[in-house]
Amino acid sequence: MDANRFERQIQFILEIDKLKTILRRTYLINEDRAENTAEHSWHLAMMAILLAEHANEPVNVSRVVKMVLVHDIVEIDAGDTYFYDATAALDKSVRERAAADRLFGILPVDQGAELRALWDEFETGKTADARFALALDRFMPQLHNYHTHGRSWAEHGITIDRVLERNESMAEGSAKLWECARALLDDAVSKGFLPKKEN
Amino acid sequence: MDANRFERQIQFILEIDKLKTILRRTYLINEDRAENTAEHSWHLAMMAILLAEHANEPVNVSRVVKMVLVHDIVEIDAGDTYFYDATAALDKSVRERAAADRLFGILPVDQGAELRALWDEFETGKTADARFALALDRFMPQLHNYHTHGRSWAEHGITIDRVLERNESMAEGSAKLWECARALLDDAVSKGFLPKKEN
Repeated sequence: MDANRFERQIQFILEIDKLKTILRRTYLINEDRAENTAEHSWHLAMMAILLAEHANEPVNVSRVVKMVLVHDIVEIDAGDTYFYDATAALDKSVRERAAADRLFGILPVDQGAELRALWDEFETGKTADARFALALDRFMPQLHNYHTHGRSWAEHGITIDRVLERNESMAEGSAKLWECARALLDDAVSKGFLPKKEN
Repeated sequence: MDANRFERQIQFILEIDKLKTILRRTYLINEDRAENTAEHSWHLAMMAILLAEHANEPVNVSRVVKMVLVHDIVEIDAGDTYFYDATAALDKSVRERAAADRLFGILPVDQGAELRALWDEFETGKTADARFALALDRFMPQLHNYHTHGRSWAEHGITIDRVLERNESMAEGSAKLWECARALLDDAVSKGFLPKKEN
């Protein structure tokens, strides 16, 4: 066994404290501040536990929970890439893979490999567990945006057509969540929280 | 099936967004602010995944993860009761049980009962999973305090004897974590981060 195994585990645990300082574009419902990625990851894990019955396919809930707890740790180095930023998306994969190499590399080899594989699986999105995890990750910002009167959409000039286009793959993980999101988005448009595309 | 099952799940998910606004007495290592309970819960879940091999007894990692994700949700109503506040401790249990009734009562009955049972198990601390979850919850503030030069200890006039007395039960869940905490605390004393008891 790695003589420094415990030390490496603790070093990683200290390192990921930084995820609490990475800000997302979404706003909290009950406080006037942006959400950070650590608390977002907690929220997704709770959703995985509670909403697994709405996945399109049977999922391993414990694996999905672990996957969403880990899915954004790369943002410690790579930052939060805004979901609607097409330019930042171009090198997102390169930045995040370098981050994964460094961050998961802090851990003992077996544990680093396990978390890295979970992250790769989430990013690739080809398994039932990953499809459901991705659906949760896409669903939550719709709730936050709707319940903050479209604040983040307005700040970034996001229109309904882009929200639909970028999020429709949610249906591959959970038709139920996509149905709920669609209803919220329709209501957001009717309430003036989310503009239609300008012609 | 409860006709409002999905609505109750979503209502709970929206309600627990408030956990991100509950502040603890610990400070982040890399940013000048208090930690909130949602991000703390995420951090404990990561620790459960990575440190389970150091539990005194075999534990069910998935259950421990779920337990720590849920363990502080009652603070939405009951607030964070400071670990060293003997007065607040007197009615902590009453406040938190009322909070658990209301919060877990938002969920469909089966899911509310499952999370409530996990929370009760954590609070009672009589199973291997709960003993390990409690050890993680006691260990993490030692790391935060040590790596912020004892900031929270200083603010509340905490001395080494009280830290040892309040945290020694950590050893029941993980002798390894308690050994590590003891070494950190000794070093904190020698560096002047943690005073000895005044006579």
